[in-house]
Amino acid sequence: MTDATGTLLAFTTLPDEASATRLASSLVERRLAACVNILPAGTSIYEWDGEIHQDPEHVLIIKCTEARFERLQNAILELHPYELPEIVAVPISHGLPPYLQWIKESTTP
Amino acid sequence: MTDATGTLLAFTTLPDEASATRLASSLVERRLAACVNILPAGTSIYEWDGEIHQDPEHVLIIKCTEARFERLQNAILELHPYELPEIVAVPISHGLPPYLQWIKESTTP
Amino acid sequence: MTDATGTLLAFTTLPDEASATRLASSLVERRLAACVNILPAGTSIYEWDGEIHQDPEHVLIIKCTEARFERLQNAILELHPYELPEIVAVPISHGLPPYLQWIKESTTP
Repeated sequence: MTDATGTLLAFTTLPDEASATRLASSLVERRLAACVNILPAGTSIYEWDGEIHQDPEHVLIIKCTEARFERLQNAILELHPYELPEIVAVPISHGLPPYLQWIKESTTP
Repeated sequence: MTDATGTLLAFTTLPDEASATRLASSLVERRLAACVNILPAGTSIYEWDGEIHQDPEHVLIIKCTEARFERLQNAILELHPYELPEIVAVPISHGLPPYLQWIKESTTP
Repeated sequence: MTDATGTLLAFTTLPDEASATRLASSLVERRLAACVNILPAGTSIYEWDGEIHQDPEHVLIIKCTEARFERLQNAILELHPYELPEIVAVPISHGLPPYLQWIKESTTP
């Protein structure tokens, strides 16, 4: 596995389109995300305080870099309506070189 | 790439909302998944028995751990309507520490 | 992290259902993708030429192999309506063995 392109797919979830669009736009404007895909609303199922919850949520797929992930995470924490939002990321191991380069250039301060 | 957080994003697909909700709820109730995002129905294209198929499917994104992946897989096989369901997982290499901790605590028996 | 199953989840995005279906079908017919999930239209937010863009897009999740990724990438470049399409992939580290085998067999020329 040729890993370590230095880029990541990060994921978070938002309760509605308006807050998803605000957060995604801020991350791109702050050059912390090159591109954010806001998926149409689905349903999230999870347990909280001993009860199974079933809530409408939008999944966001965030193209970003390892180098800026800490800042991305802090910005999401600052802007997110939840106390403990989902913020996870998986490593991009393969990609179109000029696209990977675009991710890096778009997230360079 | 700082990998090995011990957590994973697993993916499977279901033919309709009802079976997707049933499977997702069972995985959370059995403490095999911390959270499952059921995406709205899309279209899956694949070849089977020499023919290209185009079927409506829901993608499920499952937050889970490496330690419990085998059990998660067995539960999906037990509960899934397909003979050979998609069950794949990618490693979470980065994430908000308390959220990653929540994934682990939510999937501890 | 037990990585290197030799299989990947690749991602690209398309502006509409028709072009998404055409591309996905071609990748499966050419045995470059075992299965493609076309997600329903969401919204992509990104910066291009100094402006923040907000466009409807379909995310495609492509089950493929490392061995054939280069060819998959070239086929997407050939067929895609964009000049610089998103083509990234993340490593599948865990999966149902017969399903992973099916991915490999479905993408063997």
